[in-house]
Amino acid sequence: MEIKVLKDILGANDQMARNNQQLLDKHNVFAVNLMASPGAGKTSLVLETIKALQGKVRVGVIEGDISSTFDSELIAGQGVPVVQINTGGECHLDASMICNALDNLPLADIDLLLVENVGNLVCPAEFNLGEHCKVVVASVPEGDDKPIKYPAMFLIANAVVLNKTDLLPYVKFDSDRFREAVRGVNRKLDIFEVSCTTGDGIDRWVSWLLSQMGRK
Amino acid sequence: MEIKVLKDILGANDQMARNNQQLLDKHNVFAVNLMASPGAGKTSLVLETIKALQGKVRVGVIEGDISSTFDSELIAGQGVPVVQINTGGECHLDASMICNALDNLPLADIDLLLVENVGNLVCPAEFNLGEHCKVVVASVPEGDDKPIKYPAMFLIANAVVLNKTDLLPYVKFDSDRFREAVRGVNRKLDIFEVSCTTGDGIDRWVSWLLSQMGRK
Repeated sequence: MEIKVLKDILGANDQMARNNQQLLDKHNVFAVNLMASPGAGKTSLVLETIKALQGKVRVGVIEGDISSTFDSELIAGQGVPVVQINTGGECHLDASMICNALDNLPLADIDLLLVENVGNLVCPAEFNLGEHCKVVVASVPEGDDKPIKYPAMFLIANAVVLNKTDLLPYVKFDSDRFREAVRGVNRKLDIFEVSCTTGDGIDRWVSWLLSQMGRK
Repeated sequence: MEIKVLKDILGANDQMARNNQQLLDKHNVFAVNLMASPGAGKTSLVLETIKALQGKVRVGVIEGDISSTFDSELIAGQGVPVVQINTGGECHLDASMICNALDNLPLADIDLLLVENVGNLVCPAEFNLGEHCKVVVASVPEGDDKPIKYPAMFLIANAVVLNKTDLLPYVKFDSDRFREAVRGVNRKLDIFEVSCTTGDGIDRWVSWLLSQMGRK
């Protein structure tokens, strides 16, 4: 009985995700779902991406958090349209939340929509939002074993951004072991090593993002 | 309708959690539920706690992971009884999983049971396991705003361990701001700053743990 209810919820979510994607496509907006553990640096990556694309691509942002508006205030400070979703306790964004958020964004003035999911390496993997691309943000201090411990997220993603490479000298983290762990779950994943603190590697990540947008 | 199903599940979980606690009390076992984001250092804290209590307190461990047995192998290497729970996708431990694990632990030979939950700063907060004490492990690289963004976890906890203080020189993290954020959610929380890499602060954390066991 519980399983049936869950199936209905997921079915309804997928239907709404398809509607979201149709709306995005109508406005030529390419949407990316950014997922990560709390504190991996999703907001920092959003900020660095906005800076790198300034004058080239018009970015819009949806910020997902259980509570607070810190992150959307940071983003708004960059002069970018942003909608904050406070889930109030829900551990992930879903397609209906995105549907409401899209109503509040100037889609005609946006080329790239960055959706920052709730910080959680498990639950967001199960909910399509209507995005064109799913990206996992991992970070060096979390350790190189995360793809093995949280495989679902890496299985459904199109790319991994490994953030905080500036901390590599100070923590135990084997980049080869991390890459091997990622490949063990999903051979097709592109991996980008970046530091949002120093800016290292952001150019490669942004080039990839632009190529994905071209291929849409 | 869905809400009713959820209520039933939580009710059943609480009942089973009470049964678990009765079994633990019968054997004079004090149980701690350790919760954190992925990679905050729960396993490292378990290992440091085992070392600090060697010859004083007999420790047992339940390791919760979606998949893999890495952590339980590390723990078993310390000569401590350990049971690995692989949730297979579930984003948190629940009382029935703990009930099964307790059946496989030598409770008569254990004084302190450390339960490492699935790495997730949201969902584990909702499920009692039968523990006597809930502890959140936060870590410096995650940032000082986590109590504000994930308040439920800090609201239900008895203590916070702030791990990875050895990284304070290399990241933006304001300890006063963190403490203020914790107090804003829950005034009664004890906060312990530790580094499982250098061993700093472990003594204070372990003293507190021993005092809690005495007060049980």
